[in-house]
Amino acid sequence: MTHATPETVFTYGSPQLKFGTGASAEIGYDLAGLGARRALVVTDPGISATGLPQRVGEQMKAYDVTAVVFDGVHVEPTDESMRAAVEFARANGPFDAIVAVGGGSSIDTAKAVNLLTTNDGDLMDYLNAPVGAGRAPSNPLLPLVAVPTTTGTGAESTTVCVLDVLSLKVKTGISHARLRPTLAVVDPDLMMTQPAGVTAAAGMDILCHALESYTARPYTSYARKEPSQRVPYCGANPISDMWSEKALSLLAGSFRQAVAHGEDTLARGDMAFAATFAGLGFGNAGVHIPHANAYPIAGRVRGFHPQGYPADEAMVPHGMAVSLTAPEAFRYTFDAAPERHLRAARLLAPGVEETGEERDLLPRVLADLMRDIGIPAGIGEVGYTTADIPDLVDGALKQQRLLATAPKEPSAEDLTGIFERSITLW
Amino acid sequence: MTHATPETVFTYGSPQLKFGTGASAEIGYDLAGLGARRALVVTDPGISATGLPQRVGEQMKAYDVTAVVFDGVHVEPTDESMRAAVEFARANGPFDAIVAVGGGSSIDTAKAVNLLTTNDGDLMDYLNAPVGAGRAPSNPLLPLVAVPTTTGTGAESTTVCVLDVLSLKVKTGISHARLRPTLAVVDPDLMMTQPAGVTAAAGMDILCHALESYTARPYTSYARKEPSQRVPYCGANPISDMWSEKALSLLAGSFRQAVAHGEDTLARGDMAFAATFAGLGFGNAGVHIPHANAYPIAGRVRGFHPQGYPADEAMVPHGMAVSLTAPEAFRYTFDAAPERHLRAARLLAPGVEETGEERDLLPRVLADLMRDIGIPAGIGEVGYTTADIPDLVDGALKQQRLLATAPKEPSAEDLTGIFERSITLW
Repeated sequence: MTHATPETVFTYGSPQLKFGTGASAEIGYDLAGLGARRALVVTDPGISATGLPQRVGEQMKAYDVTAVVFDGVHVEPTDESMRAAVEFARANGPFDAIVAVGGGSSIDTAKAVNLLTTNDGDLMDYLNAPVGAGRAPSNPLLPLVAVPTTTGTGAESTTVCVLDVLSLKVKTGISHARLRPTLAVVDPDLMMTQPAGVTAAAGMDILCHALESYTARPYTSYARKEPSQRVPYCGANPISDMWSEKALSLLAGSFRQAVAHGEDTLARGDMAFAATFAGLGFGNAGVHIPHANAYPIAGRVRGFHPQGYPADEAMVPHGMAVSLTAPEAFRYTFDAAPERHLRAARLLAPGVEETGEERDLLPRVLADLMRDIGIPAGIGEVGYTTADIPDLVDGALKQQRLLATAPKEPSAEDLTGIFERSITLW
Repeated sequence: MTHATPETVFTYGSPQLKFGTGASAEIGYDLAGLGARRALVVTDPGISATGLPQRVGEQMKAYDVTAVVFDGVHVEPTDESMRAAVEFARANGPFDAIVAVGGGSSIDTAKAVNLLTTNDGDLMDYLNAPVGAGRAPSNPLLPLVAVPTTTGTGAESTTVCVLDVLSLKVKTGISHARLRPTLAVVDPDLMMTQPAGVTAAAGMDILCHALESYTARPYTSYARKEPSQRVPYCGANPISDMWSEKALSLLAGSFRQAVAHGEDTLARGDMAFAATFAGLGFGNAGVHIPHANAYPIAGRVRGFHPQGYPADEAMVPHGMAVSLTAPEAFRYTFDAAPERHLRAARLLAPGVEETGEERDLLPRVLADLMRDIGIPAGIGEVGYTTADIPDLVDGALKQQRLLATAPKEPSAEDLTGIFERSITLW
């Protein structure tokens, strides 16, 4: 995968960051500095019930910023739930800033609201092709302050929002540089009550962000782009590599502990760092096969109810869905960059015993970790059988934007093999 | 240095980056994306003579952006030279974007022009106290695209601009988050013709950025700040540490080679990375004693004329001035964080023989490097004697904003000792 005129340029973007215990108490000040007078707070009912979004809204008053809270975010947003949020914003606006308080679902919904209250057209106009028209926003967006309450998604760092299109039974997204939050406020205190099951699944999302961007196609392997062809995800590069390596080291020291002992503030803090660092890495490099596979795994769920999540709906949480084919995906991509797969395994499990085939090391390290933190032992445990695999492969192949970032471009047969070997991982 | 209510929060900001060979050919496109129609290009006569700023201006036409070039930047800017640039911008404006093409002098002048054409008042109103009134801008600034042509200053990443106030014979600056460039375009091709002497001096600036931010007071050692008290330089933190470590490793592999063999594109590329990485680190953590000392060393120069710089004026280039007291400064700060000083020395000189006192390791590694790349052997070689030291100490003590970031706050006696031992380093 080298070209006659190879790419020589990469881009790197990030939100401004405010990080640490108590950082979320300063949002009113920061909004005022962004020129805001009337802010829309976007959150989900679960977070709303904790009172946090209301407290965030209250403290804005001291800086003459008025808050209006929308707490109707759907966990794992859909086109319908995002349209409802946009309708709310249009009916209760205008706003001059948006604050997202919650997990990736709230932050992603806030991105869509920001886009569709500043630019005309419908959600479908902006969704990635081929599902949508892949249109780029023509107007600037409002300042968006992202306040994550789960350690995982990295949504506070990225330029994408992800949703289910209900009528098409497909998970897809919108990706544009203008969607990136202006400011990310990462306060580990907000994550202390996250249940163990959520810490495990969301942590696997962090881990896969780091691993997938570290093993992504290098930016130099693409053909030289015109400036208008540049996308936020430009492939592995020296900056995303650095963030990924650092995130892997942090996870090595904190992940098992944060799941087993959620009261450990040090482990929680390191997980929050890892989430942000991995977000800054993959938010510029991109992710590939495990994330592409996660779309149909989460989208076609029938009867699975994970611990730590709302009990009223069947779901495979995003991070869990991503992780379930990760060991087999990395066994498949090993050839493309053996040294990167080995180094990632060593960062994640320092001192791991290196026996057997080199290509098996990262899959083994991953499976050991997943077993220890209570992730299901494969897609079989969340309800899929070999009969589902053609459907799952079909869903993964729809994620061409992600698969294009893989270090080897997988065929339908390759994906079939990855799913088959992922039915039972251990 | 711990407090009853220690700081728990740090901030991190950066420009968007476009990095790589050819990146500077896309500035017109990027300006159009920032909404620009009429841009002021700020540069110095030396860079202007290469034709680069004019080429940058030309390529904007394809995107309907008009360029006006100001090529009167003074290398090592003064209050007079910055006022002249502001006058030019006022007389030829209005502009809706600014592009700085050059070294730190051009980028810093562009920051001042940006501030003073969007906010009222004079330069003195905004200079750091006690020299100026330390006023914060009340209006937003224009988008600023920084295109560095020397590998060193990191000015493309930072929130400061530095200048000589001629009437007071003092070097000082302006520091505010809004001064940070919107976009940094780092194209190693623009640095290939940099003379060896400039590569050496500017490289020592990179190195000291990395070392000083790595050894800066940790953000947690300060008292808890109110949000309005937060400054761009918040002390060493996990993000600045990562950038600093990576910059040190890159310098270890490329610095001597880039000075000795300027035609080595790989070494030049790694130096460009190191400059940007160190800028992203110190641009958030801060620098301390070597930079504070550099102000009077450069400001009180009498007859020194370095190789590779314009011959018509006596000068100690900024990076050289910074480096001349660095070995002794780090010998002095060693106690405050021995493990960081040792780790920095090992990153900069992997496999270095570790004989003698631990506190001497980093000074020795620095002196070895400085000798190899042709940096003067102390402040004596650039014209200072023991008789000048009270004056130099006085000048360094004026840089309270920098000294406050030192891991140990130096007294006048401490600084006297550092300067005395820096007259002859080897």
